[in-house]
Amino acid sequence: MTDPTERAQGIRLLILDVDGVLTDGGLYVGPRGEEWKRFHVHDGAGIKAIQQLGIQVALVSARSSQAVALRAAELRVQHVMQAEQDKGRALQQLRTQTGLAASAIAAVGDDLADLPMLAAAGLAIAVANAHPRVKAAAHWVTAACGGQGAVREVCDLLSAAAAGPAQ
Amino acid sequence: MTDPTERAQGIRLLILDVDGVLTDGGLYVGPRGEEWKRFHVHDGAGIKAIQQLGIQVALVSARSSQAVALRAAELRVQHVMQAEQDKGRALQQLRTQTGLAASAIAAVGDDLADLPMLAAAGLAIAVANAHPRVKAAAHWVTAACGGQGAVREVCDLLSAAAAGPAQ
Amino acid sequence: MTDPTERAQGIRLLILDVDGVLTDGGLYVGPRGEEWKRFHVHDGAGIKAIQQLGIQVALVSARSSQAVALRAAELRVQHVMQAEQDKGRALQQLRTQTGLAASAIAAVGDDLADLPMLAAAGLAIAVANAHPRVKAAAHWVTAACGGQGAVREVCDLLSAAAAGPAQ
Amino acid sequence: MTDPTERAQGIRLLILDVDGVLTDGGLYVGPRGEEWKRFHVHDGAGIKAIQQLGIQVALVSARSSQAVALRAAELRVQHVMQAEQDKGRALQQLRTQTGLAASAIAAVGDDLADLPMLAAAGLAIAVANAHPRVKAAAHWVTAACGGQGAVREVCDLLSAAAAGPAQ
Repeated sequence: MTDPTERAQGIRLLILDVDGVLTDGGLYVGPRGEEWKRFHVHDGAGIKAIQQLGIQVALVSARSSQAVALRAAELRVQHVMQAEQDKGRALQQLRTQTGLAASAIAAVGDDLADLPMLAAAGLAIAVANAHPRVKAAAHWVTAACGGQGAVREVCDLLSAAAAGPAQ
Repeated sequence: MTDPTERAQGIRLLILDVDGVLTDGGLYVGPRGEEWKRFHVHDGAGIKAIQQLGIQVALVSARSSQAVALRAAELRVQHVMQAEQDKGRALQQLRTQTGLAASAIAAVGDDLADLPMLAAAGLAIAVANAHPRVKAAAHWVTAACGGQGAVREVCDLLSAAAAGPAQ
Repeated sequence: MTDPTERAQGIRLLILDVDGVLTDGGLYVGPRGEEWKRFHVHDGAGIKAIQQLGIQVALVSARSSQAVALRAAELRVQHVMQAEQDKGRALQQLRTQTGLAASAIAAVGDDLADLPMLAAAGLAIAVANAHPRVKAAAHWVTAACGGQGAVREVCDLLSAAAAGPAQ
Repeated sequence: MTDPTERAQGIRLLILDVDGVLTDGGLYVGPRGEEWKRFHVHDGAGIKAIQQLGIQVALVSARSSQAVALRAAELRVQHVMQAEQDKGRALQQLRTQTGLAASAIAAVGDDLADLPMLAAAGLAIAVANAHPRVKAAAHWVTAACGGQGAVREVCDLLSAAAAGPAQ
């Protein structure tokens, strides 16, 4: 696992898996099928900070829930793709929409379904409690677990890289 | 505790206790008696993966809640037995329904009520935070606690065994 | 801290604080003031087991919530005292109601308000994450934290003592 | 990091950030945008204790939620400032309202937005899991994480200082 600092420079789009990355993987289910998720306030602050630096954010989830749509709206996340079974294809769609090169894209994942997305990203990141195969495929592994500030760590990395010496 | 790899081969049915196995044992109770449970997205992905390999899944719970029925439906779990006080009998019913030998059945538990079910299974598994007597009765103990990916570990074990050398 | 086994013999009433003992201390608060609590399934199983041995259970809480009343009803807890500001008095009331000697009463607490109750109990127990002064006042400290199985540990201790040599 | 005991003497106002300080940072989001927070019963007991010593409490949050308003009302917190983007200004407003010197004000934070507030407080405190830059700016760091009793630790410190030798 190499120092991600160099890869972090020039990132213009951060793609985030939702369950297990922006949350701790918990699915709170109620008696009428209501599904709740637990996000973390530190991640939200980090997302806002990189957006102010001009970095776009995308949420890509295999599941679909209103809670994600609402959290995304609150954070003014530019791209929200739910019920997305093929995350590699999702990344390609985002490249088409944004016109960005792979080297300008970072992606964060935790489970096997994220592997195609990570493989196509210039900076592939796994959270601390990701599946071993996901960690093995990542350029960088966060110190925090998903939902416990892992996304904030990534945002801090991108912020520091943006503030660093010009590429 | 022996290597569970051999016992994992040929498993065609995975029986899961719910509270403390598919959840962390937490019962979220609201002012009108609503009961919520917290499932984990990694467990769901593992359950889907072994189902695609032709392994059936059963949920057997001493309690009864809508949240379990809804989560089971989402994962298309084949067998759901709630308010089941005698889990040994539940396993026998599942054997009758499926025609499977004990050696083709794995069961995962965490508390004393699961002991008869574990005793009758070809592969008996306890989660990391199971009661000491349950751990002592198991062929294998997961590294993760219930609700924190323990079921996913079991599913990965069964998947690897299915992909291994023919029995 | 002495071996609690001897004190555990002859216990006929177990008094439990609620928040921080039967729960992890978390108060989940919603937009309309709804308050939820998180109980643990292992604690419930332990409470049922000691009740079958003839040991009564009492919940004594300084707060008041429907969730506690409902959980108590589900577990058929004999005594429920909510909005109880003076827990020492609560214990005395329970002694009057039950006619039990202090040596037949165990109490479990986690915070300073529990101290008078613990001081008047034959067996005073603190959970692992209790306030240091509460731990110092206890005959025994559980290995588990409140809401994570601490009450189950106490119930297992009482069950083992009941099954042991006659006092 | 110096011993905070001396600075703790003479504190008449405790200013608390909410998310990540009074909670563990979790934002529980439901299908209709409901936002729940998880408070801790130990923190509430500590807040009540210092209020009885004549120390005022203020909650200052960049977000806004009904759950905070309700929890504040339950604890009879004197000052509640929500949707407050500039926490340094919030502290100045509280100084104006209360007429207190900076040396009589303690503030607890966890994230970068809390830095101006901490810089203007006589006793600046960070929770154990605060952002590294917040910890570096604090006179004292609690042993507990936010939402896990960190605020209670602060209250116990202030209570002990109030009971100590006259300043």
